[in-house]
Amino acid sequence: MAIDYSLLAVGGALVALVYAVILIFNVRSQNAGTPKMQEISGAVREGANAFLSREYKVIAPVAVIVAAAIYLFIDIPLGTGGTTAVGFVVGAALSAFAGYVGMAITVRTSSRTAEAAKSGMGDALTVSFRGGSVMGMAVVGFGLLGLSLFYIAYQGTITANPVTMAGLGFGASLIAMFMRVSGGIYTKAADVGADLVGKVEANIPEDDPRNPAVIADNVGDNVGDCAGMGADVYESFVVTAIAAVILGGLVQLDKSLPAQLLSVVSANQLILYPLTLGVAGIIGSILGGLYIRRSLKSKPMAALNLSLMISAVITLVIDYLIGQSLFGGNPISYWLFGSAVVGIVVVIVIERVADYFTSYLFPPVRHISEASQTGAATNFLAGFSTGLESAAPSAVVLVVAILVSYYLGYYGSGHDMLMGVYSTAVATMAMLSLTGAIMSIDSFGPITDNANGIAEMAGLEGNVRVVTDELDAIGNTTKATTKAFAVMSAALAAVSIFEAFQSEVNRQISLHNLFAKYGLAPGQTLSFTLSDPHVIVGLFIGGLLPFYFSSFLIQAVGRAAIKMVNEVRRQFREIPGIMEGTGKPDYAKCVDISTAAAIKELAAPAILAVSTPLAVGFLLGPVALGGLLIGSVVSGVFLAFTLTNSGAAMDNAKKYIETGAFGGKGTPTHAAAVMGDTVGDPFKDTAGPAINSLIKVLNTISIVFVSAVVIYALFV
Amino acid sequence: MAIDYSLLAVGGALVALVYAVILIFNVRSQNAGTPKMQEISGAVREGANAFLSREYKVIAPVAVIVAAAIYLFIDIPLGTGGTTAVGFVVGAALSAFAGYVGMAITVRTSSRTAEAAKSGMGDALTVSFRGGSVMGMAVVGFGLLGLSLFYIAYQGTITANPVTMAGLGFGASLIAMFMRVSGGIYTKAADVGADLVGKVEANIPEDDPRNPAVIADNVGDNVGDCAGMGADVYESFVVTAIAAVILGGLVQLDKSLPAQLLSVVSANQLILYPLTLGVAGIIGSILGGLYIRRSLKSKPMAALNLSLMISAVITLVIDYLIGQSLFGGNPISYWLFGSAVVGIVVVIVIERVADYFTSYLFPPVRHISEASQTGAATNFLAGFSTGLESAAPSAVVLVVAILVSYYLGYYGSGHDMLMGVYSTAVATMAMLSLTGAIMSIDSFGPITDNANGIAEMAGLEGNVRVVTDELDAIGNTTKATTKAFAVMSAALAAVSIFEAFQSEVNRQISLHNLFAKYGLAPGQTLSFTLSDPHVIVGLFIGGLLPFYFSSFLIQAVGRAAIKMVNEVRRQFREIPGIMEGTGKPDYAKCVDISTAAAIKELAAPAILAVSTPLAVGFLLGPVALGGLLIGSVVSGVFLAFTLTNSGAAMDNAKKYIETGAFGGKGTPTHAAAVMGDTVGDPFKDTAGPAINSLIKVLNTISIVFVSAVVIYALFV
Repeated sequence: MAIDYSLLAVGGALVALVYAVILIFNVRSQNAGTPKMQEISGAVREGANAFLSREYKVIAPVAVIVAAAIYLFIDIPLGTGGTTAVGFVVGAALSAFAGYVGMAITVRTSSRTAEAAKSGMGDALTVSFRGGSVMGMAVVGFGLLGLSLFYIAYQGTITANPVTMAGLGFGASLIAMFMRVSGGIYTKAADVGADLVGKVEANIPEDDPRNPAVIADNVGDNVGDCAGMGADVYESFVVTAIAAVILGGLVQLDKSLPAQLLSVVSANQLILYPLTLGVAGIIGSILGGLYIRRSLKSKPMAALNLSLMISAVITLVIDYLIGQSLFGGNPISYWLFGSAVVGIVVVIVIERVADYFTSYLFPPVRHISEASQTGAATNFLAGFSTGLESAAPSAVVLVVAILVSYYLGYYGSGHDMLMGVYSTAVATMAMLSLTGAIMSIDSFGPITDNANGIAEMAGLEGNVRVVTDELDAIGNTTKATTKAFAVMSAALAAVSIFEAFQSEVNRQISLHNLFAKYGLAPGQTLSFTLSDPHVIVGLFIGGLLPFYFSSFLIQAVGRAAIKMVNEVRRQFREIPGIMEGTGKPDYAKCVDISTAAAIKELAAPAILAVSTPLAVGFLLGPVALGGLLIGSVVSGVFLAFTLTNSGAAMDNAKKYIETGAFGGKGTPTHAAAVMGDTVGDPFKDTAGPAINSLIKVLNTISIVFVSAVVIYALFV
Repeated sequence: MAIDYSLLAVGGALVALVYAVILIFNVRSQNAGTPKMQEISGAVREGANAFLSREYKVIAPVAVIVAAAIYLFIDIPLGTGGTTAVGFVVGAALSAFAGYVGMAITVRTSSRTAEAAKSGMGDALTVSFRGGSVMGMAVVGFGLLGLSLFYIAYQGTITANPVTMAGLGFGASLIAMFMRVSGGIYTKAADVGADLVGKVEANIPEDDPRNPAVIADNVGDNVGDCAGMGADVYESFVVTAIAAVILGGLVQLDKSLPAQLLSVVSANQLILYPLTLGVAGIIGSILGGLYIRRSLKSKPMAALNLSLMISAVITLVIDYLIGQSLFGGNPISYWLFGSAVVGIVVVIVIERVADYFTSYLFPPVRHISEASQTGAATNFLAGFSTGLESAAPSAVVLVVAILVSYYLGYYGSGHDMLMGVYSTAVATMAMLSLTGAIMSIDSFGPITDNANGIAEMAGLEGNVRVVTDELDAIGNTTKATTKAFAVMSAALAAVSIFEAFQSEVNRQISLHNLFAKYGLAPGQTLSFTLSDPHVIVGLFIGGLLPFYFSSFLIQAVGRAAIKMVNEVRRQFREIPGIMEGTGKPDYAKCVDISTAAAIKELAAPAILAVSTPLAVGFLLGPVALGGLLIGSVVSGVFLAFTLTNSGAAMDNAKKYIETGAFGGKGTPTHAAAVMGDTVGDPFKDTAGPAINSLIKVLNTISIVFVSAVVIYALFV
């Protein structure tokens, strides 16, 4: 029986979406709690919706302009009849829609989780996990649906010109960057502002309803950690799949393939294989997720880990079966399956590494707690150096993954270098195929964080708080491990995309006969060698971008947080009876401040991320642009690990002290740790995660505009 | 008249050394102050000498082993008869000796500066500047002497095999890294320890004689900021000269030179030119330095800036004249002079940039002071993001310098790429030729810092403190600008060294006929292209190293500072009458703690820096090693700028508050800024500066061992 694998991919996507709908009905059928809980949850939902609609209203005209530019400067000259522009619009629209659907559910799940917590841990975990799974399934479902339908619609164009797929990725990247930047600023402006006045000055607990910024803080968890992370991982999924598809397409266009490969390229198997990995991951994620159920008696963290392991194993089994079927037993299937194993193992290992550096069960975080005894300075030095240190094992995993997956493809294909790189892309795609499972585990974090807030604000009794507190702490760790997953996948995807970029540069040079312009003999290829000063200059510019971008975001949070601090102080001062609970704080005003700041601060980093690669490309040429792409990853991946892990570690160092260690709450040690947490907040939730998006925007915009860059570059 | 330019270089070196001797006599003839001042100064001198002799005792056997390894594995197989090993020993010995001489004078100058401050600003500035100039002249004098004598002794070997010069650079690098790491840990363990207990807990002022760690703190200024910075800049000078000499030699060996160049390569002009730039810089530095004199009435910072400008202009005039003479009017002399101008302009611009981000006369530092009003967390976020931001203009300067100097050489030579890179090396050498002037300005900082301490401890009256306080604040800024100079030169030198490395790799492949091993056709050259996963993996490993290295150093300071804190607390508790000034603190114990910690923490980072490039080279081959070299610069230069500038900015934000801004001393705002300063201390004085040394050790060890790596690499 002949299987149409592109239809299989569509089928997999539909399975994810149908499962998401089932989960939505399941979640909505749960008890939403007391009227007070529903009122709070409604306010959060309203704030989140208001933010998202303002955000989308800002993005929409930008997206239209970019789409028009792509159509005019790329599709028309290339004769690709709008493929790239359509891809851009589809990629952007699906990302926005996935974020909307996912967030619409997470905001509805939190009051239900708080309600379920009354019945115990298993119930609360199950409800919040299912809410998170809606986001996970929406992300992979819409991601794979877009990819496979786009492939079916433009199969001919893509086979002849694989890079036309890149528009889809650029659309996803642009949305992700907007969401990451503004979501990150929103959530931390509210959080830092609420903490600095509430906890530090007024000495009221977290999530206290008397704090005017409390609703904004809860909205922030949804727009930053749910919608932002969703858009980020959606982008990773789509961009990685596209990188693998493009590389597969390039291998197929290669005229000098080893004999062994010739039989498998005829029917686009190398293009289809990455999409089938996505299908396997969806099924694995769904089945593994079923392990999380109400009757569960084990520790929640252990249960979540086991659920992920089940998903991983099932995914690998399906990977193997689909690979055998697709490649019809060609030996290359075993080598590529080896790469898929590498990708899945990377997920497991990198989660362990992030867990080690950010959970208070291990020495690094305990050391930060200990260092808080001598004050905020030593707390901070310990936290920051822990972040720096965590980059090391992460880098080892990255390097080993690149080398092993490369050599699997290289030797498996009889020494074809491009197949080696394709094999690395396959490992990355296998890694990303677990996105459904990872997002379910990640999104349950902000849901429980919100549930915790609702429980506090609605004054639910103690045993509910015990359940939601424990889930909240676990959420901190899973958020950190998801970020490590996102950083690692961005780095691996960038390596694949660079290869596609370089191939496309040379194809364009050949197509337009620009050999003389680039100082090449006819038929010679342009090399991106480190001895070329253009490459070095590109590497430096690229290496700078994550630093400058982070600087901007941290400062933006600072500016917004100061506005929030002043507003909260004003309300405490001016609203009579607010501290006694008789006067009602003006929550909406704080929500407005966060929303306005997040939208306002969007322009500068977006312009930086979009204009730098174009300026470098058109001025200094494709070789410098190639250097920029790699440079941004080389410095960005380590800066991202440093920022996200140090922030998470400092957060949990505070939480460890709150369990009673080193004197517990109310001591100077705890106050020092709260300071450290405040510093770590924009590190881990704004600047660190936004670096991923930056790296991917740089990659996708470069590959979309590569033809124009090659033709019009000035000083090459 | 035929000039022997190598003898000219020897002459220039001797001029520097003779001038240093004159300055030594001049300084020693000054009044060393009251017996109390001499007693304190004697204790500091004793501590500094004890540290240096223990340090050298640890380094000596390591240096012997490394020299033996170089002789056995490099000189014997290459048939270079010990040239590389001898170079290593000479480079290391001269670096150690220059550091010793310079520090011997700085420790003697501080009490004399305090004494001179009684007569006013002009006197104090002149004495401290002359003391600093001894260090400056010792560094360039010994540096140029070693280079020129080595060239004269081994002229034949070097012309045939330019890379044999590299041993000299590796010797300098190894000493510099040891001095930077241990000096950095020493000075900050003492400083942080003294501040945390003295200023924060016991509430006594800086440099109070009741603080047991006060002598150790003053010793630290000398061993970290004088000896450490001296070794660092000595290394930059030597390594940059060597890179330029090697590239000049490689151009001369090039068989396909443009006709215009053939006439200038016959007599080694391209090898000699960088050395003559060093001579010009020495004369310019001496003459410019004469501007600083007792009768000076202008503001000290303005005077120092003007002195530097005079040095720069004189140096350029001499550069032009020597270039005309050396190249006999060949047009290439104008192009290369253009590159020298680029190098000098970079010095001026980068000093302005560092000044802008670290002086409290400008908005960034004032913003940090302002942010201190909301506590240590916002102080720290503002300081760190300022550091991140400062990387941007620095990167622009770097990129423009590389491109402009490259194109000057490239077009000037009729499109020879290697001449383009040589031209960048010329710009770097012109930059470094101002080392004498820069070091004079830098070393006066720790001298006045010590003078300030002596004035405080000896109870000199108020107007002395006014003078030494102002000079101390200026010293903070000049220290920051010198670090920017060191980072920038390390980055530029690394670009040149990479080119030499790559040429040498291919020469070795050809020499040993290893084309098949590297998958090359006979005669083909190995390319370091970004599409090769080995390059990518090398870039990631290299990119990681500065992060991991920084993490280690910050943690080492933390460990040592905690020991110091406990000792100071113990003395306050156990020594009767210590707080009343009747009991004498045990200064020697604190000196011992810093010394022991600095020596003990040396091994791990040294092993990391030396073993990683060798492991990558022998395991993954020269291509991965090349990637590592560039990767370490791409991430390292930005991390170094971030750490050094954020630390200096936070220090000066504290100083700005101490001038009375935002409430001044004794307010919570000031306490927050003190916290920020404590965090910034190991950033700016330990981790940040050590990254330079790391980058250069990686470079020099790789180029020394390149032949062995090419022959024995396993997985290439």
